[in-house]
Amino acid sequence: MTIIAQLQDEMKSENLDLLYYDDPLVVSYLTGFESDPHERVLAVLLFQDALWMICPAMEYPSVKTIKEAQLVLPYKDENSPWAILKEALDHSPKQVTRIGISEDTLSVARYHSLRSVFKEAEFENSTSLIQNKRVIKQPHEITIMKEAGDLADKALKVGMDYLKNGISEEEVVAKIEYEMKKIGVADMSFSTMVLFGDHAASPHGTPGKRQLQPGELVLFDLGVVHKGYTSDVTRTVAYGEVSEKAKEIYHIVLEAQEMAQKAVKAGMTTGELDAIARTVIKEAGYGEYFTHRLGHGLGKSVHEFPDVAPNVTVELKNGMCFSIEPGIYIENSVGVRIEDCVYVTDNGAIPFTHTPKELIVLPVKE
Amino acid sequence: MTIIAQLQDEMKSENLDLLYYDDPLVVSYLTGFESDPHERVLAVLLFQDALWMICPAMEYPSVKTIKEAQLVLPYKDENSPWAILKEALDHSPKQVTRIGISEDTLSVARYHSLRSVFKEAEFENSTSLIQNKRVIKQPHEITIMKEAGDLADKALKVGMDYLKNGISEEEVVAKIEYEMKKIGVADMSFSTMVLFGDHAASPHGTPGKRQLQPGELVLFDLGVVHKGYTSDVTRTVAYGEVSEKAKEIYHIVLEAQEMAQKAVKAGMTTGELDAIARTVIKEAGYGEYFTHRLGHGLGKSVHEFPDVAPNVTVELKNGMCFSIEPGIYIENSVGVRIEDCVYVTDNGAIPFTHTPKELIVLPVKE
Repeated sequence: MTIIAQLQDEMKSENLDLLYYDDPLVVSYLTGFESDPHERVLAVLLFQDALWMICPAMEYPSVKTIKEAQLVLPYKDENSPWAILKEALDHSPKQVTRIGISEDTLSVARYHSLRSVFKEAEFENSTSLIQNKRVIKQPHEITIMKEAGDLADKALKVGMDYLKNGISEEEVVAKIEYEMKKIGVADMSFSTMVLFGDHAASPHGTPGKRQLQPGELVLFDLGVVHKGYTSDVTRTVAYGEVSEKAKEIYHIVLEAQEMAQKAVKAGMTTGELDAIARTVIKEAGYGEYFTHRLGHGLGKSVHEFPDVAPNVTVELKNGMCFSIEPGIYIENSVGVRIEDCVYVTDNGAIPFTHTPKELIVLPVKE
Repeated sequence: MTIIAQLQDEMKSENLDLLYYDDPLVVSYLTGFESDPHERVLAVLLFQDALWMICPAMEYPSVKTIKEAQLVLPYKDENSPWAILKEALDHSPKQVTRIGISEDTLSVARYHSLRSVFKEAEFENSTSLIQNKRVIKQPHEITIMKEAGDLADKALKVGMDYLKNGISEEEVVAKIEYEMKKIGVADMSFSTMVLFGDHAASPHGTPGKRQLQPGELVLFDLGVVHKGYTSDVTRTVAYGEVSEKAKEIYHIVLEAQEMAQKAVKAGMTTGELDAIARTVIKEAGYGEYFTHRLGHGLGKSVHEFPDVAPNVTVELKNGMCFSIEPGIYIENSVGVRIEDCVYVTDNGAIPFTHTPKELIVLPVKE
């Protein structure tokens, strides 16, 4: 049964006449059509018995070929998509009294536009309907995400091989992304992060002109977009011999990461998983320096449902994909993070990335 | 008078107690703080006499240094930013009865959260307050955007120089972005577009493995993000000698682009400007092949207010920045677009990019 058919079944049992989606990731999830319409409306309207799409006129040649869509409503920039939708509805026997929306991605402005089209309808927050589909990856999605993970491993290798005395963070970023683009990666899943030494102590630092010195840790956090899915991996490596303190912190983070990854199994909550890593770091005396959640879901988006964070009660299920990425950040001193993204199976967590996690000590190059 | 002070004055005359902004671009516009908080809340709350910020705990070390902010409310991933805001308000004498929001960027979910914090307050759509500030660029913004335009010209040159027989679109994209990253450009303003021959007939085509042949047109559409501002430029060039038909279409688009650019002056509407270019293309018999608006505003975002499109009645004013980018796209045959972004002055439009617009014929390279 397709995802669309499953949703339509659930619409029947929840008495919803229409599901409205304009998040480009959901549009692509349901129809396979990848496009960033910027501020223009590109939407899927899912009825119990049909799928309609609204699209900018310039996208019509592609959208009209989508086999899932029974009706496509193109509009030119000078026209209102809502007026065109209203007209199509006036010519259709469809009765729409209850509409499901995704409140987390729908803007208030479009919500008002929808309400002006469906004046008498009730609106429900149906975020969970589509979220519960997207969160469990199907085998073809896992296959793509494995490929995306392999590409992230390749990118890490490019970065590590390129380190040498005096090279800047931004030069390493440029090299990584260039090599990825050359093999057909159109987009990274976020701005590639390469941070040297204490610069890595800012968990969202920006790579700049800082030059690499022997004895520094180097933090790589990166991922690619591949066939509409993302990868995300972090490794912190030593460039030459690093201090005992740096090694100690590294091994605490590693233990936290590995303990959590090994503990993954269906039925536990993401909050429980977070606690496993957090306890390791707390007991080692660094609790206050682990300032973020353990992880986040990923799939078409590099940050999606669910949160892997304290007290979150989302239950792990087979097919869920998320990051496990503890870190310790001590301002003006050292920053370490280690991250694999994994998917849940009967045999526990299987990672999408395979770059070794034991501290890699790279040779110093002149 | 700072933008913040101007907004606070307008709040007084419009009787607004609070303006709420969580669009990262507006946060950076008002505070200079650049960050993509992903799905986390990073917000500015502007009162008539103070500016508060809500930020993820991990951003707190940076946010607490923002001099515009009188109060910063950090929250950890396991806590609700809304509960923390509620508590701060309970300890403050502030009375909030009317709140301005930006309906085009605020999600319905956060709107509901805000309403739960400010139970008794009225909400107004105040998009235009901030939009009317952002749309008129200040001299320091124009200076940055000129630099961003210069970088876009450099990127075009990299791409043109790199063309040779058999090279793929994605190889050219990789080269352009690599050379930009090496000189410190962290992000392009959108995925760089390089399209060969009839592939350029899709106005939102995706660069791929298509290989360049002599006699093809090559369309470049690209821009950079520089100091928080964007550039955007399109050139279509000939790789070797192209057909008479291609040249004819090129010259129609060029005439449309130049006529519009020369006509820019304060007081006319963006709809009138669109009509000038559209009329040229219509009268040449290609009206149906110009399938999009003439342009869009740009600044911190590469697509922002105002639309330059048929019937839009926004009046041009000095300091406004927008693209002028007519195109003709004939499926399976040819695609041409020419774009400069400009700012409005007493002396008409001044472009941010200076790559020549007369058809450039590049030598064929083996």
